[in-house]
Amino acid sequence: MQKLDIFNHIFPKPFYELMMKMAPGHEDIGKRVRGVPMLYDLDERFRVMDRFEDYQQILCLASPPIEALGEPDIAVQLARAANDGMAELIDKYPDRFPGFAASLPMNAPAALLEETRRAVDELGACGVQIFTNVNGKPLDAPETLPLFDLMAGYDRPIWLHPARRASHADYPTETKSKYEIWWTFGWPYETSAAMAHIVFAGLFDKHPNLKIITHHMGGMVPYFEGRVGPGWDQLGSRTSDEDLTGLLEKLEKRPLDYFKMFYADTATFGARAATECGLSFFGPERVLFASDSPFDPEKGPMYIRETIKVLDGLEMPDHVRADIYRNNALKLLRLNLNGA
Amino acid sequence: MQKLDIFNHIFPKPFYELMMKMAPGHEDIGKRVRGVPMLYDLDERFRVMDRFEDYQQILCLASPPIEALGEPDIAVQLARAANDGMAELIDKYPDRFPGFAASLPMNAPAALLEETRRAVDELGACGVQIFTNVNGKPLDAPETLPLFDLMAGYDRPIWLHPARRASHADYPTETKSKYEIWWTFGWPYETSAAMAHIVFAGLFDKHPNLKIITHHMGGMVPYFEGRVGPGWDQLGSRTSDEDLTGLLEKLEKRPLDYFKMFYADTATFGARAATECGLSFFGPERVLFASDSPFDPEKGPMYIRETIKVLDGLEMPDHVRADIYRNNALKLLRLNLNGA
Repeated sequence: MQKLDIFNHIFPKPFYELMMKMAPGHEDIGKRVRGVPMLYDLDERFRVMDRFEDYQQILCLASPPIEALGEPDIAVQLARAANDGMAELIDKYPDRFPGFAASLPMNAPAALLEETRRAVDELGACGVQIFTNVNGKPLDAPETLPLFDLMAGYDRPIWLHPARRASHADYPTETKSKYEIWWTFGWPYETSAAMAHIVFAGLFDKHPNLKIITHHMGGMVPYFEGRVGPGWDQLGSRTSDEDLTGLLEKLEKRPLDYFKMFYADTATFGARAATECGLSFFGPERVLFASDSPFDPEKGPMYIRETIKVLDGLEMPDHVRADIYRNNALKLLRLNLNGA
Repeated sequence: MQKLDIFNHIFPKPFYELMMKMAPGHEDIGKRVRGVPMLYDLDERFRVMDRFEDYQQILCLASPPIEALGEPDIAVQLARAANDGMAELIDKYPDRFPGFAASLPMNAPAALLEETRRAVDELGACGVQIFTNVNGKPLDAPETLPLFDLMAGYDRPIWLHPARRASHADYPTETKSKYEIWWTFGWPYETSAAMAHIVFAGLFDKHPNLKIITHHMGGMVPYFEGRVGPGWDQLGSRTSDEDLTGLLEKLEKRPLDYFKMFYADTATFGARAATECGLSFFGPERVLFASDSPFDPEKGPMYIRETIKVLDGLEMPDHVRADIYRNNALKLLRLNLNGA
């Protein structure tokens, strides 16, 4: 069965070199990247990919977010280099990489839409990858709202990747967190909080066709369906110093119904019960195969293998499995591929 | 089938009156309490309980935590009043309330163990309820560690309830959070972070019989089994300024294995797929029926009804269902009841 892995990570070599040059103080990133060769070494990536039959990848840059690497002018140059690098790879290896999600300089509002247009119109990006906050600011800040309008206009997806933040009123603050809790639980929390901002800012009322792919099977939302559902139906009952009840009236639907409008990927690192829970929440037509490779203990193949094992083991008609593995993505990413 | 609801909330009337008197500045709590009569009105509680056949409750105080209500001397008095109030209720209505979880003045280390002993030895508490942080401090701080030793010695459970915090390095900070994200996603995050502190502090190595009941089906842990599992097997790989790898070597087991040593309750507010995911993670022998009543849109009956609907609808042998509804709790809480 053909498989299109829509969320996995890469540093195209020219981008990686530029990042190391332009973003000094990020030597820690360099060190971590060098520990995971598949991130920058194409031959290693092909060796890992070849272990899996009929397996292709949509390319996304690895984190940290572009906007965390430097001031706006640096971010713009880095985003351009990242997108040029990924475009080069999909041109050169279309059978390996049928597409990519563009990286954006989210801290450079003046250049943001321009780079988006360049990536989609000129470089052939399938959509864009953004992070759950912009250097601490929520995604519904005035500077970044126009991106949602643009992407809804394109009818192309936004990949939503979690990002740690230093401090913000409704996100965890964990510059110096213990035990990497910021990663294990903080990232899905960030994803969930960002989803809430998108919902309560009314973005799905404004753009019912808005397509947002949430990493790691929708963050916390499916497991906490009860809190998002009847819990948030009581929005305002836990707040004394502000009247939040009007917010529910302003929205056209129940909060829960908007959360079901997101898309989600299967990157649960081999967690079968979680995958079932996520599938039950979003429905198989909104779930897309993804591995989050190469960030696993084996530095590449493990999460691909374990995710395939979970999906192959779930009881569902084969045409539904094929949708999750590839067809949902072809439709969402507007790809027209012939064969693998 | 007999049902014992082990996590639901009450304010015994004498405690509530004392709290309003001793903890001024908490009028907002008073206002919210008055909106949910079942919290303080026993007749209303009985009316709601009577809707369900063979249904009993273990009493737990409602939040906020005792220690958030005042200085240590006030907290000690409030904890005593809460425990006296719950003990009175179980003495007077043993068929309704076969037991209670004691409240503790966690900010009063000098009195903490004394009140625990008084509650268990003299008042007949089944165990104690604590919150996921102590006014911002993690549970493995030196002042609160002796409580875990004491409870392991008693072989009695600790109910772990989430609590918002103002600020701490590895918890969300949300004194002024938008959309009550601090509740919807922040609470399960707090639960998960507290579980991580308990695990990485080595408390399960020290006390393999430690019994901790995590609210809302184990926080985020079951859904993020992949992050807790292979994700945390790589502890240290995401941290540059500190060497965390030694921590894994210090522990006797894989991090994931410790997280499976917690107990969890069914308070998912009617989320069937989440309940299945949690059951799959902890195993049915570590899951206990609980509703979190009365904090639902109907102010009492809805979460009881919806939780029963989920459990009755799951495919499992009836003896397993009976374990989840009551027998696991009887064993864990060391209750010896005859009939309902």
